[in-house]
Amino acid sequence: MADLRFGIIGWGYWGPKIARNLESVSHASVSMVADLDKHRVAMVASQQPGMRTTTEINELLASDVDGVVIATPVRTHYQLAKQALLRGKHVLVEKPLTANVEEAEELVSLARQVGRVLMVGHTFEYSPAVNEMRKLVQSGELGKIYCVEAERVNLGLFRRDINVIWDLAPHDVSILLYLFGQTPTQVRVQANAHLLPHIHDVAHLDLGFSDGMTAHIHVSWLHPCKIRRVTVIGDARMVVYDDTNPAEMVKIYNKGADVNVDPVVSYRHGAITIPHIDWMEPLRLECEDFANAIRTGEPPRASGEVGLSVVRVLASAQQALDMSARAGIVTAVPA
Amino acid sequence: MADLRFGIIGWGYWGPKIARNLESVSHASVSMVADLDKHRVAMVASQQPGMRTTTEINELLASDVDGVVIATPVRTHYQLAKQALLRGKHVLVEKPLTANVEEAEELVSLARQVGRVLMVGHTFEYSPAVNEMRKLVQSGELGKIYCVEAERVNLGLFRRDINVIWDLAPHDVSILLYLFGQTPTQVRVQANAHLLPHIHDVAHLDLGFSDGMTAHIHVSWLHPCKIRRVTVIGDARMVVYDDTNPAEMVKIYNKGADVNVDPVVSYRHGAITIPHIDWMEPLRLECEDFANAIRTGEPPRASGEVGLSVVRVLASAQQALDMSARAGIVTAVPA
Amino acid sequence: MADLRFGIIGWGYWGPKIARNLESVSHASVSMVADLDKHRVAMVASQQPGMRTTTEINELLASDVDGVVIATPVRTHYQLAKQALLRGKHVLVEKPLTANVEEAEELVSLARQVGRVLMVGHTFEYSPAVNEMRKLVQSGELGKIYCVEAERVNLGLFRRDINVIWDLAPHDVSILLYLFGQTPTQVRVQANAHLLPHIHDVAHLDLGFSDGMTAHIHVSWLHPCKIRRVTVIGDARMVVYDDTNPAEMVKIYNKGADVNVDPVVSYRHGAITIPHIDWMEPLRLECEDFANAIRTGEPPRASGEVGLSVVRVLASAQQALDMSARAGIVTAVPA
Amino acid sequence: MADLRFGIIGWGYWGPKIARNLESVSHASVSMVADLDKHRVAMVASQQPGMRTTTEINELLASDVDGVVIATPVRTHYQLAKQALLRGKHVLVEKPLTANVEEAEELVSLARQVGRVLMVGHTFEYSPAVNEMRKLVQSGELGKIYCVEAERVNLGLFRRDINVIWDLAPHDVSILLYLFGQTPTQVRVQANAHLLPHIHDVAHLDLGFSDGMTAHIHVSWLHPCKIRRVTVIGDARMVVYDDTNPAEMVKIYNKGADVNVDPVVSYRHGAITIPHIDWMEPLRLECEDFANAIRTGEPPRASGEVGLSVVRVLASAQQALDMSARAGIVTAVPA
Repeated sequence: MADLRFGIIGWGYWGPKIARNLESVSHASVSMVADLDKHRVAMVASQQPGMRTTTEINELLASDVDGVVIATPVRTHYQLAKQALLRGKHVLVEKPLTANVEEAEELVSLARQVGRVLMVGHTFEYSPAVNEMRKLVQSGELGKIYCVEAERVNLGLFRRDINVIWDLAPHDVSILLYLFGQTPTQVRVQANAHLLPHIHDVAHLDLGFSDGMTAHIHVSWLHPCKIRRVTVIGDARMVVYDDTNPAEMVKIYNKGADVNVDPVVSYRHGAITIPHIDWMEPLRLECEDFANAIRTGEPPRASGEVGLSVVRVLASAQQALDMSARAGIVTAVPA
Repeated sequence: MADLRFGIIGWGYWGPKIARNLESVSHASVSMVADLDKHRVAMVASQQPGMRTTTEINELLASDVDGVVIATPVRTHYQLAKQALLRGKHVLVEKPLTANVEEAEELVSLARQVGRVLMVGHTFEYSPAVNEMRKLVQSGELGKIYCVEAERVNLGLFRRDINVIWDLAPHDVSILLYLFGQTPTQVRVQANAHLLPHIHDVAHLDLGFSDGMTAHIHVSWLHPCKIRRVTVIGDARMVVYDDTNPAEMVKIYNKGADVNVDPVVSYRHGAITIPHIDWMEPLRLECEDFANAIRTGEPPRASGEVGLSVVRVLASAQQALDMSARAGIVTAVPA
Repeated sequence: MADLRFGIIGWGYWGPKIARNLESVSHASVSMVADLDKHRVAMVASQQPGMRTTTEINELLASDVDGVVIATPVRTHYQLAKQALLRGKHVLVEKPLTANVEEAEELVSLARQVGRVLMVGHTFEYSPAVNEMRKLVQSGELGKIYCVEAERVNLGLFRRDINVIWDLAPHDVSILLYLFGQTPTQVRVQANAHLLPHIHDVAHLDLGFSDGMTAHIHVSWLHPCKIRRVTVIGDARMVVYDDTNPAEMVKIYNKGADVNVDPVVSYRHGAITIPHIDWMEPLRLECEDFANAIRTGEPPRASGEVGLSVVRVLASAQQALDMSARAGIVTAVPA
Repeated sequence: MADLRFGIIGWGYWGPKIARNLESVSHASVSMVADLDKHRVAMVASQQPGMRTTTEINELLASDVDGVVIATPVRTHYQLAKQALLRGKHVLVEKPLTANVEEAEELVSLARQVGRVLMVGHTFEYSPAVNEMRKLVQSGELGKIYCVEAERVNLGLFRRDINVIWDLAPHDVSILLYLFGQTPTQVRVQANAHLLPHIHDVAHLDLGFSDGMTAHIHVSWLHPCKIRRVTVIGDARMVVYDDTNPAEMVKIYNKGADVNVDPVVSYRHGAITIPHIDWMEPLRLECEDFANAIRTGEPPRASGEVGLSVVRVLASAQQALDMSARAGIVTAVPA
């Protein structure tokens, strides 16, 4: 099997993590790191003596790496990914894929033209717990799905360039799309910029799907507790996925309410089941999927198309937020 | 001290609970119970040999009781409370006070005219944990309040006559009004009727206050877990009140994010404090406040005026829900 | 069905609780309360106008009650129960049955002679959760049982007349005897009197059973957390019963270690199951069993014989404690 | 600052972890790995191209490394550490230091003679949470310490060469010695070999200290839950250290029981405080201490002397276990 060489653009939070995981993929290695910050580059060079480093991103793009990982601020994703594709590189872009729909569409189209892999870092699609949830949804075990409640809150980390929707909601939107295989048809947003002007730090999104299912997503940078939870409410079973509880990540509740004539509603209270999940690091699986897609030509799970769908939802949410700010579509409470 | 005699109208879920707590108030006793259902009335008679019982509510209203507790379906609150006041009785009505604003206004006005106590069963205003929260808010210890997240979900109990907003949100709205001493100026609602047509069983309310504070309330009859939590996010402290965790009901987090120049935001991570709360049964304290208001003429904490304020918020939420259903003010997600 | 009348001796912590539950048994009522403390007796009289009360226990024993509940300090159990049986009363004694084996043997023998019910207040034998555990053990679902770990700790309540073993261990010992249908053959104890001289407030008991099963019981009045947990370790399944977690009282772990040749041991990691338990108040079920035993002549679940078995274990533990204090059977650690 | 080179003997569970942490110490690097298993050695060689590897341990001992990490089975610790010291290497041995007291004494003495660092891998002495606990104990904030309850249980990992006491109790014993600065004077043990003959897999240790403080340690390879908890009961405060709860590792309870005249005991129920702990990886701090001790000549925190003290306690526990197995010092429960 031919060895794959990868280059990493951006050595912030995600760059080193992805590099470490790519290194553990067999017949794959990271051969070059680029970052605009010369201090970061110097640090890489001192810690990993054999590693080629540069502050010139073009140098990395012009090198012989097979694949490029783009772990930079969102606003730069489009330009960097475009250049990399044009140079014939396979590309893995951190989420969200781009800052708007047009850019994402262009990248997807370009990747198809040049015949290269375009992938987005939707790590949660590779989580064994999310895949356990997906199996439950897809098998029909949960019955008809009424609604989903997703929560992803914690203190910080504030970003200057994007709001909390673009920062945190890509996770939940990509999970929803992956679980249900459909995109929402409408979205409503309630968000606030409490700390910095114009940078919304708390948001509630309501998504509507064509089959009547609804989803609520609560994302926040201003919360004392770390909560990462997705609850799926079906008419046969209800499931809670709690990413912060390793020993009990997925809990299946055999309970529910059934519609009758008299009394109108009756309740089922059955057992709770916590399946054993063979845990594997999602980021590791993501990196393996990237290498595999390059080798086989098969599209990766978190393909550019998936990344585009997520950006469509985020962009609609942003539009809803902008409109509601202008239109003031709220109901006054009389004093 | 003269003994107070009370009559209970409605012997369902709340009636017996309030009766038991009224009995434990000194120099107070329940002397009569009325319910339309003759089986229930017979049961009371057999279990409590000395108790007067009737299926004729007028019989109770015509009796010599000093105070009347109305623990019946919401749609009947107005008529029953009005009659009781007109007969000179002091009245405690289960929450919400009435089914609309006009009725609540009329009751408040009538109580003032006849000089009788009108009180509403906002039990949580008597919770020692909520009062601990209030002390934290009012003392300024939490700093400027950014927002509040309230959650009150569980499986059932479905009601046929009111939706989940009128059933569960009175608790959270009354807590908010009590904590902050102000009413919201605007409200937005996203709700769905998953199980029964036209009876919304899941709802998200967004409340806006004149000082920029926002509050989100999530109420649901369709959830696998019992969650009763209110999180208050201040710029100095954040507090979580979890009503289902008796040993750690109020948790004060000395953490937050501060706005600077460079870096833009910095974070504080300090200790968590769980104050000891001397627990007393909220319903017991509510009953004592009712008896005390009758005796002293002082308005009770959960006065008719407070009940009216809560109904105003609920009615605005209902109006927002009705309007949004008609207007479809949502943003479409392009396919 | 003839009505049963009960008398309660001792109006402290348990007396009122048992009285309330006996009242809810059909065709049963509490007709008399006796306590040496005239203030307590006066309080009962004022709160329950129809109730006969006395500070003369003989008056209650001489009355026409059918059954007597003895909810007094342990040292008085024997004399009171004996007198009650000799007067032809059915007797329910709070746990532990007596303060030593001889007294318990005599009561059991006397009850048999006079043909009256002798029962002991081992409430946990009536807990639906303990009965779920028992079903799991008895059905063989857990496989061969290796060992049991029981923990019952909290702050207080210190008693002056008995140590923590006699106060708290009756619960765990009675649970063990009920789960496994056998008594331990040997016992070791490590206990300390930290707060008051000679009143041991922390104890660890090790019980050995004839089939090789072992059980460890940790009881303490000096602990910051309320823990009430019994873990049963079988070679097929492991179960945790946590009495403080109403939503997840019994958790069945399909996990374990299996002995092989190479590697020596392999591990199974399967699902966790939390069965739904139809909850009923254990004390209510205990009271119903008392009434039923009186009516039918069938021995109650927590019979005098069971009470005697538990006292035998406690007395052996006390003996072990006394001996070890004298003999100093410990191993020195060289400096 | 001169660079330090380290060699790792044993590439099982701990070897790679320590290597990674040593690499992150500044001016320190791992230059050689030795393991008897040629497959493991080959794996290291392929993953880390520059690393020298060998299956001949003498080759590593004869190399120019400054320090040697011994991460091999316990029975080999003594011989390997002795040889390394005799060759002038600084030595870090995984816990427990040796399999018996004589070996530990000899190593400590030898290290002193040759003027080299002898250190033992008591990782928990470097845990910021344990150090927070130590600060609380040493400052007197907890008051007089009554007793300690330590629990370290989980499923597996079974070992063939040592029992659960030698495997898990070194952690708790080293924590106790570190917290209180004193060694126990006596020890009692109750242990069982449920799964494999002669390899005890569940054990309860009772330690007595000269000042009357007692400690109970429960270690088990046969438990469904991962519990790692140390509770310190003082007369002024009680503290729980739960190593499995990163957000609330140390909880200080301002509660307790005080001795009075009447009533005999009264209770304090105050606030719970959870201090913020600046987390740093204990293993990283341990590696830094090793490098620092080599450079400065200052003894490391987890010195050979400390390792010897822990081995003394473990050996006494083993002796107590052997004796109790022979002497049968238990109390029979009469049938």
